[in-house]
Amino acid sequence: MTKKIIGIIGGMGPLATADLFEKITLHTRAQRDQDHLRVLIDSNTGIPDRTAALLHGGEDPAPQLVASAVLLEKMGAEVLVMPCNTAHSFYDAITAAVRVPVLHMIRLTAQALRERGVAAAGLLATDGTIQAGVYQKAFAGTGIRLLTPEGADQQAIMDLTYRGIKAGDLHHDPAPARRAMEELLGRGAQTLILGCTELPLAAKLYHLDYPFTDPTLELALGAIRFAGGETVE
Amino acid sequence: MTKKIIGIIGGMGPLATADLFEKITLHTRAQRDQDHLRVLIDSNTGIPDRTAALLHGGEDPAPQLVASAVLLEKMGAEVLVMPCNTAHSFYDAITAAVRVPVLHMIRLTAQALRERGVAAAGLLATDGTIQAGVYQKAFAGTGIRLLTPEGADQQAIMDLTYRGIKAGDLHHDPAPARRAMEELLGRGAQTLILGCTELPLAAKLYHLDYPFTDPTLELALGAIRFAGGETVE
Repeated sequence: MTKKIIGIIGGMGPLATADLFEKITLHTRAQRDQDHLRVLIDSNTGIPDRTAALLHGGEDPAPQLVASAVLLEKMGAEVLVMPCNTAHSFYDAITAAVRVPVLHMIRLTAQALRERGVAAAGLLATDGTIQAGVYQKAFAGTGIRLLTPEGADQQAIMDLTYRGIKAGDLHHDPAPARRAMEELLGRGAQTLILGCTELPLAAKLYHLDYPFTDPTLELALGAIRFAGGETVE
Repeated sequence: MTKKIIGIIGGMGPLATADLFEKITLHTRAQRDQDHLRVLIDSNTGIPDRTAALLHGGEDPAPQLVASAVLLEKMGAEVLVMPCNTAHSFYDAITAAVRVPVLHMIRLTAQALRERGVAAAGLLATDGTIQAGVYQKAFAGTGIRLLTPEGADQQAIMDLTYRGIKAGDLHHDPAPARRAMEELLGRGAQTLILGCTELPLAAKLYHLDYPFTDPTLELALGAIRFAGGETVE
């Protein structure tokens, strides 16, 4: 079977893009370069901030998202992926603009959690992702209860993402974010969804160690399988 | 000043490609996604093995290298980079095929070492890179003496690259490679050039700690500057 070329609509942010690309590589069974899947990436850092657009009347990112999708399809991508949770609010605009399939990171995550028998999951995500209901829509009908942080706890997750990772601050204090995570576990969450693609990096960088679910990894595994590769977990 | 779009001719191997992309991101001064440079990547894992072509009559990688370069230029890349030392044997064929500049990783490395006043450097590289004289040519006239491993020591570096990193073997024994590196330092090398883009990954993964020079980092810094970004070292 001929393997499909994966296209990554990236730049949201660039480290999250590198993280997905690395996860695709590390989870593909391969003995040499030529066994790996071909991947095309547009790390389009000119895409306007997704949360700003959804909540604060910021510039609409859809035209740039669509432009990257169309460019990748023109280059030869046969399946598209998008390592940004908030950008999934604009999923329909993207699928309408291309002929190739676009894998939905959050639906893949919902499916994985259902297969693992999870009944309640904590959602760590940006204000934009939460308020746009991206996870709530994808989880509807799965029977999985989604718990979200409240007030200062949600602000701590935003700070970890924007002031920590996106600003490249190695010295950001993760203590408030830890409290937010522990509060969700205390409310019965069996797993914490790293529902912003910067958060797997934050977990590693700031040594956060909780029962996490990583949608970037679920997307990497989904993309490898869809492209005809063999996964290594 | 408008910033230039960087195109990465990648897939040689994909982890080295991710490493360059991550280094470009981490060494760019940025407070938010939109401050980062736009990067286009073709992780073209179908490019035939470079060392096999140079030394063992393997398939010529030049047509695929040129195809990736042309594709990236067509997508909008304004400067190209290639995170594979051995592929620089085919540098002239690539520059002849595109109008945009192609940064030369090894010349950038030679320049950096000259600026640091290095008189003798050990070269850790594939048989293809060494026998094609890629480094010897770029270092000619710099006054820097290049020392290369001999016999079993060179084989240990090849094994670290091909059986270790490219094959994804976390349990590869790095002891023979350590001996090769210490022998070069014993012969007077002031620094060891990680002259295969898999080697910075090997150094990290197998906890090798010597005075290294990383051409992937030199290329990342060169690309950021050329594209009009500000570097953070």
